[in-house]
Amino acid sequence: RTFIAFSGDAWYGVAHGCTRKLGMKICGFLQKNNSLDEKSRMVGAFKESTKNQMCDNSERFTRAETDFSNLFARDLLPAKNGEEPTIQFLLEVVEILTNYVRKTFDRSTKVLDFHHPHQLLEGMEGFNLELSDQPESLEQILVDCRDTLKYGVRTGHPRFFNQLSSGLDIIGLAGEWLTSTANTNMFTYEIAPVFVLMEQLTLKKMREIIGWPNGDGDALFSPGGAISNMYSVMVARYKYFPEVKTKGMSAAPRLVLFTSEYSHYSIKKAGAVLGFGKENVILLKTDERGRVIPADLEAKIIDAKQKGYVPLFVNATAGTTVYGAFDPINDIADICEKYNLWLHVDGAWGGGLLMSRKHRHKLSGIERANSVTWNPHKMMGVPLQCSAILVREKGILQGCNSMCAGYLFQPDKQYDVTYDTGDKAIQCGRHVDIFKFWLMWKAKGTIGFEQHIDRCLELSEYLYNKIKNREGYEMVFEGQPQHTNVCFWYIPPSLRGMPHGDERREKLHRVAPKIKAMMMECGTTMVGYQPQGDKVNFFRMVVSNHAVTKSDIDFLIDEIERLGHDL
Amino acid sequence: RTFIAFSGDAWYGVAHGCTRKLGMKICGFLQKNNSLDEKSRMVGAFKESTKNQMCDNSERFTRAETDFSNLFARDLLPAKNGEEPTIQFLLEVVEILTNYVRKTFDRSTKVLDFHHPHQLLEGMEGFNLELSDQPESLEQILVDCRDTLKYGVRTGHPRFFNQLSSGLDIIGLAGEWLTSTANTNMFTYEIAPVFVLMEQLTLKKMREIIGWPNGDGDALFSPGGAISNMYSVMVARYKYFPEVKTKGMSAAPRLVLFTSEYSHYSIKKAGAVLGFGKENVILLKTDERGRVIPADLEAKIIDAKQKGYVPLFVNATAGTTVYGAFDPINDIADICEKYNLWLHVDGAWGGGLLMSRKHRHKLSGIERANSVTWNPHKMMGVPLQCSAILVREKGILQGCNSMCAGYLFQPDKQYDVTYDTGDKAIQCGRHVDIFKFWLMWKAKGTIGFEQHIDRCLELSEYLYNKIKNREGYEMVFEGQPQHTNVCFWYIPPSLRGMPHGDERREKLHRVAPKIKAMMMECGTTMVGYQPQGDKVNFFRMVVSNHAVTKSDIDFLIDEIERLGHDL
Repeated sequence: RTFIAFSGDAWYGVAHGCTRKLGMKICGFLQKNNSLDEKSRMVGAFKESTKNQMCDNSERFTRAETDFSNLFARDLLPAKNGEEPTIQFLLEVVEILTNYVRKTFDRSTKVLDFHHPHQLLEGMEGFNLELSDQPESLEQILVDCRDTLKYGVRTGHPRFFNQLSSGLDIIGLAGEWLTSTANTNMFTYEIAPVFVLMEQLTLKKMREIIGWPNGDGDALFSPGGAISNMYSVMVARYKYFPEVKTKGMSAAPRLVLFTSEYSHYSIKKAGAVLGFGKENVILLKTDERGRVIPADLEAKIIDAKQKGYVPLFVNATAGTTVYGAFDPINDIADICEKYNLWLHVDGAWGGGLLMSRKHRHKLSGIERANSVTWNPHKMMGVPLQCSAILVREKGILQGCNSMCAGYLFQPDKQYDVTYDTGDKAIQCGRHVDIFKFWLMWKAKGTIGFEQHIDRCLELSEYLYNKIKNREGYEMVFEGQPQHTNVCFWYIPPSLRGMPHGDERREKLHRVAPKIKAMMMECGTTMVGYQPQGDKVNFFRMVVSNHAVTKSDIDFLIDEIERLGHDL
Repeated sequence: RTFIAFSGDAWYGVAHGCTRKLGMKICGFLQKNNSLDEKSRMVGAFKESTKNQMCDNSERFTRAETDFSNLFARDLLPAKNGEEPTIQFLLEVVEILTNYVRKTFDRSTKVLDFHHPHQLLEGMEGFNLELSDQPESLEQILVDCRDTLKYGVRTGHPRFFNQLSSGLDIIGLAGEWLTSTANTNMFTYEIAPVFVLMEQLTLKKMREIIGWPNGDGDALFSPGGAISNMYSVMVARYKYFPEVKTKGMSAAPRLVLFTSEYSHYSIKKAGAVLGFGKENVILLKTDERGRVIPADLEAKIIDAKQKGYVPLFVNATAGTTVYGAFDPINDIADICEKYNLWLHVDGAWGGGLLMSRKHRHKLSGIERANSVTWNPHKMMGVPLQCSAILVREKGILQGCNSMCAGYLFQPDKQYDVTYDTGDKAIQCGRHVDIFKFWLMWKAKGTIGFEQHIDRCLELSEYLYNKIKNREGYEMVFEGQPQHTNVCFWYIPPSLRGMPHGDERREKLHRVAPKIKAMMMECGTTMVGYQPQGDKVNFFRMVVSNHAVTKSDIDFLIDEIERLGHDL
């Protein structure tokens, strides 16, 4: 098999390959047609191949001073003599990017350099967003690259805590650079053979970690957790009412879905998009920690049935967006079994904890789910985007979504076309989201993800312990958080003596937005805030970035106090 | 304003900025708290800032021989002393990538090195897809990067004609590298200020090019044309039956959608996904060139109404997937106006022709559409993925999809929150698809896209003229193609004398798959084939890669004849 194990493989090898695979037809051709022309072409290719093999190891790029002010896109490859300017241009871009990477991890650099929309739209010095008819020089393009980063937000900065996705993993970054260079599409094995297989293997591994026997089932990477959750509702509908695919929702009775009042809004959105209607997404009460109360689920199922509706689907959230709460999956699964409902676990945020022997008990019962959303781009630090929808029943994604487009999924291809995944998806083209994740897994090992998760949870425990009894802080819910979410109010000195009541509530509601605005204008750190239920605006601190240390947690607290002290 | 026009801006500047924006509060703080500690921090930051500004221009990376066999992911940033190995690792990756780019444009390199799934799964020499518990060295990671590219498909190769998306634009590639380095998310201005504005400006420009007055309307980039088309159906439903969002499809009468029998399968898929049912997607007859027959649309609308169904939506395809046919938009728009239906134009493939003064007449009437899908990642050569859904009515995307999630779209932010686009989307997180496109537009100018499109159409005209009367070829439809799609059968000598009939049909049906299989095994070129309607497998040639020249078209013909001669 070695004849195909090297890149730039010679024509001879290919000829042999064809012989082995296609019988005598093509081999016969090569024998018959060994004209001088063909021979010289083959030998030429062979030499080229040998050279290429050496190049792989020896041809290293060299930076050369290049004047980009007179160079344009049209001078780059595939232009004649475009190779040198292409390499120099890309290296110049790489320098901008590596400098950005360096600074991202440098705490003396700001997290962002805030500007209002109108300021950026009016145009900063040398940076103009407007598009024009005529091309700009590569020098200007390089300036544009620099400025785009300059006025952006460093989501990998150790003091950026604003989103569930944060951090800048170097291996993941390299993976993304390669993905965009390969510039292909996941719909067929034909044009993404390696990526399709990586996806298959990785998703199987994820199913094993969920606890489905032999890792059996099906799965896809989708463009984000909202779409993954939407898949789960679609597949549940197809399982119980397959005729909806053909006849529409009118072929089904009035179907209802259940999810926590504090679950992600994408469940409700899926209800609206898929034609259930958002009022048929029934919200479940939660306890003081934000976890679904199973008795409320059962009561609402019974109530819905009494009204003549048909309960279809229950979403249990493993790690809610704000509180980081884990719904009790086993209790919910019992109820789903009793009433024969589809159980989905939205582990977009909390799924990563499955990688930790210490924390995975928070998702116990997940192996009983019919489907799971799990976003490696959140807690596992994989670059955006990387979200998986995993389904226990094999073949159901295909059944639900296939349209058998003849131009793409030809049954008479020469390879095993079950590897063509496109017809399982609601997309046609699908971005390659797997490679960075696969490469990170190789580079860190399963154990590396576990360490990352344990570390982030330790840091949030540190924060929790630091502020739970500190003057000027109130925790939004009692007890140690289940996930890295630490939710708290900062109470400025002016409010500390004030009696609880509407005036205090109104004032407190304005504190977090004010502090956040100052953080952003000063560029020192970023952390999220929001109201929830009857609770006025509070901070939600999360940690998913492996660059964060205790000193950054300390910094955040100092900064909140510095900015909020006089409010 | 210049104080904010430089990166690494000093604390002094920020303090002023805060003063201007937030009044005396924070300024007061800075005055009051100018303790020694704070002062030294400010001065330190200022020095750092000055250094950084110089770095932008002067700190150039240096390659250094690095032994990666003892380095692991954990040694990279944010590790202590991780900066040097990080830069060296990224540069090593860049070398792999630039070598790949070089070879992509080198015609002596194969388009692919084909292996069957089982071969890659068994593991090639040194390349093993399996994931393990323990980390692998960076040396192995670099080998994995090299091998991933080696066993993949060079979609930018001048002889890759397999997909509507092809080519490897260097500016677009640089844009993707930067996008992944910025690693952010489109849902809020807060964390993607520059990208959100670029998206807004670029989409407005696209709407102007469509011909909507002042470029007014709304739009989003979505994860591919299928999702963009799905948006159009959702928005149409919301326009006529807004109560479906809340109450579900049962609140609406039986709705029907119309689209060409040869339109993209995503329209039918949208019907299935959104709860219309695919049998309520009514297929329209086409003429011999694959264009919708307007009279058939009107007849079917009348028929549906007589049955008591409610016609809602018509899709006109501007550039069908196989024939590249343009439906007559003006005629269809007349009918839509008459019956008050939503008109969507699926210009995923053909939308690019709007950039060409010579070819845009093929889409005339598009300005009458209510919504348009247009994928710059196809005909405009932008790297995957980049697909826009454009809607004429402002505010309707928001109305249709908003769920007002409090944790993300806080109304009390310090900036104009109308720039937060996330609530318009069916996704929550949304990948940054704009930057590469914006950067290409800057670098090429509108005129550069026009030249690209005109050139691709000229090349396909060259192919058409070359084979239309050539022995051994039959065109699938008569006359010059409207788009770059050239559809033809290659008739091997053994079939040339055979009378038309079932035997010939069966044999001819097997020719294209056989030739394609040999192309892939030999790795010389790739072109698509499919059956359509009652037509047996034929080749569909398309050109969207700016690296293609006439010599590559000649090569394709030679190769088909070489491989197919003895079939």
